[in-house]
Order: sequence, then C-alpha cells, then structure tokens
Amino acid sequence: MEIVPLKLVTVIAEALLEDQLIADIKRLGARGYSRGEVYGEGSRGLRASEWEGKNVRIETLVGEATATRILEHLAATYFADYAMVAYVADVGVVRGEKYV
Amino acid sequence: MEIVPLKLVTVIAEALLEDQLIADIKRLGARGYSRGEVYGEGSRGLRASEWEGKNVRIETLVGEATATRILEHLAATYFADYAMVAYVADVGVVRGEKYV
Amino acid sequence: MEIVPLKLVTVIAEALLEDQLIADIKRLGARGYSRGEVYGEGSRGLRASEWEGKNVRIETLVGEATATRILEHLAATYFADYAMVAYVADVGVVRGEKYV
Repeated sequence: MEIVPLKLVTVIAEALLEDQLIADIKRLGARGYSRGEVYGEGSRGLRASEWEGKNVRIETLVGEATATRILEHLAATYFADYAMVAYVADVGVVRGEKYV
Repeated sequence: MEIVPLKLVTVIAEALLEDQLIADIKRLGARGYSRGEVYGEGSRGLRASEWEGKNVRIETLVGEATATRILEHLAATYFADYAMVAYVADVGVVRGEKYV
Repeated sequence: MEIVPLKLVTVIAEALLEDQLIADIKRLGARGYSRGEVYGEGSRGLRASEWEGKNVRIETLVGEATATRILEHLAATYFADYAMVAYVADVGVVRGEKYV
C-alpha cells in the first residue's frame, strides 16, 4: 500500500460562499473535495466584527503547490469581507498520487 | 500570505454537553469555533461502559497554551462521567495571528 | 494530563458503504468511531470515472498498527470499485491509552 504525503486544506466560511469556493478550489487544481454543514462563531473580515451562523466546511486533499495557491487566493479574495477560516495539515493519503 | 502554526483542538462528545462545552472553550480563550453533528460509538467515562448516539463535534483553532488549558479542563470536568474524545493536531492557519 | 500520540484515520466514501465500513473498522481493532454526512465530488475507483453525491465521513482514533491494517483493508477491498478517500494524520489524544 502506498501512502503519499499530501496537504489537507480545510476552509470554513459563511454558507453563501459555498458554490463560489468550490469553483475556486477546482479551478486552482483540486481533483475533489468534500463539504459538510457546520455552525460557527468567530470574527468576520479584517475589521473583526463578530459572526455567528451557518457555515460550510470544505476539505480537499492537494499537493503543496496547490495548497499554497488555494490559501493565497482565499486570503486575497475573501478575508477582508467575509467570515472565513482556512488551514492546512499534513496527512498521509492512500493512493494519494491521484490527487496531485 | 502568512501561515501561523496553531493547534486544532477537536472535541467529540454527547450532544447534551454542546452549550456547556462551547461556553467552556470560549471562557478558556478560544476566539471562535465550529460545531457539527456526528453520530458515534465508543466508551463512556472512566468505567468505560459503551456509548452510541448523537454527538457534537467541536473544532477550535488556538495557541498551544490555550489548547492545553482546554484539554486539561475537559479531562478534569467530563471524562469520568461522559462519552468524550478530545484531541489536538498541528495545523498552519492563514492569518492565524487573530486566533491567539 | 496525559496526551498520547495516535493516528486519526479519516475515510470518506459513498454513503451506501457506511455500515460495512464501520463493521470493518471495528473488526480491525478500532475502539470507537464517529461518522457524519458530507457531500463530495471526486474520482471513483481505479478507472477514475467521476463521482458526485452523498458521502459518509468516518473518523477513528487508533494506534499505528491498527491504522495500517484499516488502510490496507480499505485499499484492497473498495478502491477499485467505489468512490473513497482514506487518509491518516498524527494527533495527540487526551487519555489516549484507551484507544490502543
């Protein structure tokens, strides 16, 4: 069995951004994603007003270059105006070669 | 783009504890959280009877000191009597400075 | 407080496999699991046709040997024919000794 080191990118954002975020992620190189519904609380945008409500949680497994591309795009496009959290973790993926 | 190393704390527990856990986490220093519904099976409490049912899955991004504070509080307060799993992972967070 | 290093195994698969996957995971040594509903898109099986639809997301905390056993079983049993993603991450678990 082959375990490939990849990046797991997780994005949690206001639910209204869901379709747009998925289009972004695919365009930037992700081969797949999963998304679920969560409820969250936190700060919204650079002015850090408070946010509470229905969020989407999107996960995608990608190579390091794609992870960086996705995170940079999200920060530049959405962080000033929307409630969004984006983070990356190291994971080992079974048959991971199909994700890069 | 700035990626800040933070701790992702995940708590999975009996759904009835949801509000109390979120109040605890915020009081102990978390700036935000997300929560979703999961279903789980495992052992319950120190006497390890079996548990199966609706759970809440809470995630929060925090600095290392806050992560330790949260995990110690959970272990001391709930582990003896409730079904609960709590774990911590290293992640890199975009604009992570606002979480610490 | 004792934090035990363990493996968090995550499996995302077509929802119809849910019961079978949970039976597999328990038989192979997991002491518990949580599962939630997600929606996903990606490639399906070795022939990599496209898949889009309702998925189950199963997480379990296990020792390294059990993680390897679960991942090998999934790859051998399901990867050729089903939409499935399986990955492993390092986590620190409170009172983690009860999971191994």
